[in-house]
Amino acid sequence: MRPALIVVDMQNDFCLPSSRLFVAGAAVAIDGVQRAVAGFRAAGAPVIWVIRQHRPGGEDVDRARQALFREQPFLASSPGADLADGLAVAEGEVIVVKRRWSAFFATDLDLVLRRLGIDTVVVAGVQTPNCIRATAVDATSLDYETVVLSDATASADDTVQAANLSDMANMGIRIATVEETVRGLATA
Amino acid sequence: MRPALIVVDMQNDFCLPSSRLFVAGAAVAIDGVQRAVAGFRAAGAPVIWVIRQHRPGGEDVDRARQALFREQPFLASSPGADLADGLAVAEGEVIVVKRRWSAFFATDLDLVLRRLGIDTVVVAGVQTPNCIRATAVDATSLDYETVVLSDATASADDTVQAANLSDMANMGIRIATVEETVRGLATA
Repeated sequence: MRPALIVVDMQNDFCLPSSRLFVAGAAVAIDGVQRAVAGFRAAGAPVIWVIRQHRPGGEDVDRARQALFREQPFLASSPGADLADGLAVAEGEVIVVKRRWSAFFATDLDLVLRRLGIDTVVVAGVQTPNCIRATAVDATSLDYETVVLSDATASADDTVQAANLSDMANMGIRIATVEETVRGLATA
Repeated sequence: MRPALIVVDMQNDFCLPSSRLFVAGAAVAIDGVQRAVAGFRAAGAPVIWVIRQHRPGGEDVDRARQALFREQPFLASSPGADLADGLAVAEGEVIVVKRRWSAFFATDLDLVLRRLGIDTVVVAGVQTPNCIRATAVDATSLDYETVVLSDATASADDTVQAANLSDMANMGIRIATVEETVRGLATA
């Protein structure tokens, strides 16, 4: 098993309660992501940071969000696009910028994972029904073993979180806690 | 017709004679690219700058060039990755970073062109048999009207340049000079 941790969208614009894009469960996810990142680093397994970012001109903003973007340019070169407090990219870790839900859509993530010889994609971040699920579905479509970390992801509420994890489990995506996943790295 | 000019790889590492990736015809291309950029800007048509750039760790460097990259990290965050002298991105113009030959491969170029309502892709830059041709072939595969500028592209020598332009013409890609293309913008 050659796993990589893919941390998705852990940015201020999704994690700060004052933001219009705030994900209610984000604080929980930060704690889980921190533990996952620490575990992968300790095991020498790659951590890849996927961030959503937009050009100041908005040419790459989702059609449905263009009006909102013109009003308040979220995720452009602004503090909102920075990683949430308590998270930081370590030297040598890869950053992938994305424009849409899935971390694979119109990005070079697959290209980097292939080069690193990764066969198992472990997904963490926010939010579960949108970017986490889209990324996990693409990962499994691309034939990666795919794991979603139940306690390092978050949704607007517990009902949405549970329904999405259940749907993904039915698609063959493994749902696991940070603790069991990190323990698996040590014994692999 | 809604055309955009796609300027490919006009960077020091390809354009400076001292570089190991130097393209012999690059100086000719710089002059042509300057005229094309001026013409598109004057007509209010988008200019998009595609640059090849690599992460310092080399995770996204082509397999065939990895040994060379370890020796001399071309196209990383270095002066070699900067645009050649005489070329500059204007405010509001889009930059797309690519990792491989085609400007469409593992990038969001197609996504941006769709949003801008572009139907005609005009390709300029270096070098013709590699990145220019790969980009033009993908553009035509994606159903864009595709034009390659004969005097704003360059190859190692005239034979290679002519053979590639001829091959592309046979694939339905239009080969045109900067002057006739810019004139077409004015009358469109």
